[in-house]
Amino acid sequence: MADAAAKEWRGQVLRSCITSAGDLRLAVAEEVIAAPAEGEVVVRVQAAPINPTDMGLLFGPADLSAARLEGSAEQPVLVAPVPPQAMPFVALRLDQPLPAGVEGAGVVVAAGLGQEWLLGRTVAMLGDGAYAQYRRIAAADLLVLPEGTDPADAASALVNPLTVLGLLETAKQNGHKALVHTAAASSLGKMLIRACRQDGVPLVNIVRREEQVAELRALGAEHVCNSAAPDFRQTLTQALQETGATACFDAVGGALTGRVLGAMEAAAARRATQYSRYGSDVLKQAYVYGALDRSPIEISRSVGLSWSVGGWLLFNFLRQVDAATLARLHRRVCDELRTTFASSYAASISLADAVRPDMVAAYTQQRSGAKYLINPQL
Amino acid sequence: MADAAAKEWRGQVLRSCITSAGDLRLAVAEEVIAAPAEGEVVVRVQAAPINPTDMGLLFGPADLSAARLEGSAEQPVLVAPVPPQAMPFVALRLDQPLPAGVEGAGVVVAAGLGQEWLLGRTVAMLGDGAYAQYRRIAAADLLVLPEGTDPADAASALVNPLTVLGLLETAKQNGHKALVHTAAASSLGKMLIRACRQDGVPLVNIVRREEQVAELRALGAEHVCNSAAPDFRQTLTQALQETGATACFDAVGGALTGRVLGAMEAAAARRATQYSRYGSDVLKQAYVYGALDRSPIEISRSVGLSWSVGGWLLFNFLRQVDAATLARLHRRVCDELRTTFASSYAASISLADAVRPDMVAAYTQQRSGAKYLINPQL
Repeated sequence: MADAAAKEWRGQVLRSCITSAGDLRLAVAEEVIAAPAEGEVVVRVQAAPINPTDMGLLFGPADLSAARLEGSAEQPVLVAPVPPQAMPFVALRLDQPLPAGVEGAGVVVAAGLGQEWLLGRTVAMLGDGAYAQYRRIAAADLLVLPEGTDPADAASALVNPLTVLGLLETAKQNGHKALVHTAAASSLGKMLIRACRQDGVPLVNIVRREEQVAELRALGAEHVCNSAAPDFRQTLTQALQETGATACFDAVGGALTGRVLGAMEAAAARRATQYSRYGSDVLKQAYVYGALDRSPIEISRSVGLSWSVGGWLLFNFLRQVDAATLARLHRRVCDELRTTFASSYAASISLADAVRPDMVAAYTQQRSGAKYLINPQL
Repeated sequence: MADAAAKEWRGQVLRSCITSAGDLRLAVAEEVIAAPAEGEVVVRVQAAPINPTDMGLLFGPADLSAARLEGSAEQPVLVAPVPPQAMPFVALRLDQPLPAGVEGAGVVVAAGLGQEWLLGRTVAMLGDGAYAQYRRIAAADLLVLPEGTDPADAASALVNPLTVLGLLETAKQNGHKALVHTAAASSLGKMLIRACRQDGVPLVNIVRREEQVAELRALGAEHVCNSAAPDFRQTLTQALQETGATACFDAVGGALTGRVLGAMEAAAARRATQYSRYGSDVLKQAYVYGALDRSPIEISRSVGLSWSVGGWLLFNFLRQVDAATLARLHRRVCDELRTTFASSYAASISLADAVRPDMVAAYTQQRSGAKYLINPQL
């Protein structure tokens, strides 16, 4: 264990490397963290979730069904082959052991000049490298949480909450008054249900299984449609007509994106009183922020002519948002960390657990509500 | 023939009606035009093109292979069955004889109070109803052309020129510096080639046949790619890399939209120096303004995360554009009517010709460069 007077910190870290020989190597390694410079701190990481967005960096296009364990008990390495045809897509990361873990929380154990006030505070961090026992980071990049916050409660304080709030900001800027969400039974989906209820924004939730309909209804969701049900199109169109939803936050893609926009156009057509060859003039938008369905996004021409679909990425939003808005969003996350933005986890695992093939098979499934948390101190 | 002192004008007009019995009836009818009110004029229409956008109103979903001619020589009627399953989509237009022809040009033959200065002037008109011998219209809705302009030269002065200029404005507003155009051998495509050359905007033209490559090269186009060629992806990516084009004006849709965006991402990746799991941060946009391919628009995930695709409609653009910009675009159309915005036609036909099944079969083909012009005075 390190303390604030130490000159350096020695700790374990998870690194993902794709070798030019065609292997993915996900390794627990040891690294040394130098003392923080001016404006920096060292954080002892205690909780970092495994988010869908982490999978690409952790595993790339490796064939995990052929994964095996190498290395020692202290420094285990998961090794899995990368199919030759996928190698060109990872050319820019070859032979580089990359730090992983896009967010996490911990306690500040050392502070550079000017940041002494942060010592002992719980903080949340954004940016690859959270799967590590210690991390040196610029204080400006931290979200500082209220005194006494449990790091486990703050592990998912950034990616999901800021995605929810960023999507809501984006939709508001584009004039949308009611929303649709796909993959609505996810952790993020539950946050969105609570945030929309608080903001008075009507929300149509789309899930893929009947038990998720009941689960979200129990959370207070008013409109929940099951995309696997035979009457999906009817119930969705009805909900869209009732809410007037014209924006879709889409974590899925594939054919679903176009089905939602088509139903929005059908709902708009029901309200039309005059024929137009161009369809309705209601702007229907989908913000595709996830890719649970990797097949091509399909938009049929029954959406009319007023529509747009685009990728939405938290990091692009954060680059564009003004400082006052970001401060407002951060404040809301802090205020509602244990309510609106509460997360739950299927299990808490160690860095060594995270490279075990059986564990990898479990957490790469991306089932709704089965999120894993890494505690690097275990 | 009417004159300015007359109280009313009697003339032929084309009207499209879908009956509740399930027939499309495209008829040459006679109508009486009342004298213009304050702010209005009566235009003697001399030239109105058949644009792709006119097809939907003229024929709806009728089965034209079963079309037959009824009525008299003076008032012929094309009758064609509408498939029962398509009837719900036209419910809002049933049993209404709709005026057709989204643009046209003619000479002002009568003027309401305050518009006397327009008498004898050649004007271009936008909005359904140009397939008529006489038309009463608000003077504010006219584009008044330079003295002595031949109406045949002004027939296509609005839809294609304003689409070209509107798309260029939209792309500029979104920061794009170089462009792609699909269906580039169209009348509109040739206008765009000339406008981009004049503005110094690099343009990548996509055509579907090898002879169109030569045709556009002869017009001075630098980058022309044939989407039917086996090396399309390579030549397109190369042209995108050379030009840095990040916006696509897309008249086609289907799989082509996603292929273009994917090639833009591949071109951006060639310039990348560092690995990013999110792909490039270059925003790639497609403005879908036509539907030559009616199958669903397909966007594969190889486009990365910074992309957007949406419908683009001239009439939506015109509703949103500010008056100063619109005046600037109108002025450019007038100045360059016989150069940048020159159109040519396969044939000039009468209103009665326009309902003949053999003629309908010819002009509904929408072959590049085979545009028809209606002269209602023939």
